[in-house]
Amino acid sequence: MKLFDEKNFIHQLSIDCVIFGYKAGELKVLIPKILLKKPLYSLPGGFIYVDESIDKAALRILEERTGINDIYLEQYYVFGNENRINNDLLNNLEEFSQQMNQLEFEENGLNWLTNRFVSIGYYALVDINKVNPKMGEMDESVDWYNVKSLPKLIMDHNEMVEKALETLRRNLDEKLIGFNLLPETFTMREVQELYEAIYDKPFARNNFQKKILDLDVLERLEKKFTGAANKAPYLYRFRR
Amino acid sequence: MKLFDEKNFIHQLSIDCVIFGYKAGELKVLIPKILLKKPLYSLPGGFIYVDESIDKAALRILEERTGINDIYLEQYYVFGNENRINNDLLNNLEEFSQQMNQLEFEENGLNWLTNRFVSIGYYALVDINKVNPKMGEMDESVDWYNVKSLPKLIMDHNEMVEKALETLRRNLDEKLIGFNLLPETFTMREVQELYEAIYDKPFARNNFQKKILDLDVLERLEKKFTGAANKAPYLYRFRR
Repeated sequence: MKLFDEKNFIHQLSIDCVIFGYKAGELKVLIPKILLKKPLYSLPGGFIYVDESIDKAALRILEERTGINDIYLEQYYVFGNENRINNDLLNNLEEFSQQMNQLEFEENGLNWLTNRFVSIGYYALVDINKVNPKMGEMDESVDWYNVKSLPKLIMDHNEMVEKALETLRRNLDEKLIGFNLLPETFTMREVQELYEAIYDKPFARNNFQKKILDLDVLERLEKKFTGAANKAPYLYRFRR
Repeated sequence: MKLFDEKNFIHQLSIDCVIFGYKAGELKVLIPKILLKKPLYSLPGGFIYVDESIDKAALRILEERTGINDIYLEQYYVFGNENRINNDLLNNLEEFSQQMNQLEFEENGLNWLTNRFVSIGYYALVDINKVNPKMGEMDESVDWYNVKSLPKLIMDHNEMVEKALETLRRNLDEKLIGFNLLPETFTMREVQELYEAIYDKPFARNNFQKKILDLDVLERLEKKFTGAANKAPYLYRFRR
């Protein structure tokens, strides 16, 4: 199998994906580790076929690198500094070359990869329980890392995560339903835990409840059965 | 002078700029008209030098095509359908070729231009009184068109304007100060006219005033002197 023929791709343009995962009050990011002596961590990324839309390319790249498919990926920013060059690749070209030859990369392909690239960032937020990442052929592992303790990533990939997190925070109110991170019915406390994980700060309970109810997307159901009727919290679901 | 050597640019990646202009309650878009027998209207666009950041490229392109410099341009979306090809150019290659040869385009450059391009959209909102557009060498004119009555633009450029308008509306609250569209001191009515032009709908006066004051960016000054003290509106300015 030939993994990579640079002639099939748009030159100097790449896509990188920031996949946020949420589970039990914690926000994580999915990071593949590239198969080399000195471990290299990078966002799942790749290139765009000359006859492929960028949105389809993003979905394909994500599936090739992590096995994840059928999620809602959204572009959020283009990273286009003139010095965006993969120096980790340049500095380890020989080892890459050996490694990649096993994967049937061509030498031309490796040189092509050391050009300056403009990269389109895509992001998504998923329920960690609902996806099952598998590592790609170039990788030694693919793992979830807490967003507050990411490893040092290649190039400007740490900055890409920061910018994606800003976008996620700014859009959370309107994306809350679409992200599909809450069970069928849930308590206000569960919504608050989600917001607190994403914003990395506590919210005052009353203000938070008012803010969320003002979004006008929730329907209040009966109280949750806890045995202690007085203190039982209400259950909510998203309005259809 | 040689205007265009395709070897200096990143291939298949372009930048297009949506420049909104505001004046007297009206929202307009700056559109150059390309110098050809059959008039072609397109957003001011161009290409990225291999050693140039995309943000600097956007500013340079805007200046080359419209003479406008020193404004705040922001990227808002990447247009990357697989069929983004300049059919107007393809269908008029001979006339373009004659025209562009006068401008010292090379034939290779013209062929290069007929490839599929991914385009990064940038937008800005300016005070029409404060800028002075000049047409570029390829153009017959560069004019402001009301956003509701744009000519048919090439490729997906009308869609690019729509998407930029969505972005402008979504970000108006937080960009209000930065856009610098209001005089040093202004009435609430002037703010409302600006919003109504951009959203293309009326706002109820009391609700609008509350919404804007809730943004917490305005400082209320004395009443405007109108001679009729009772009905005189308050003046506001942006808090420093």
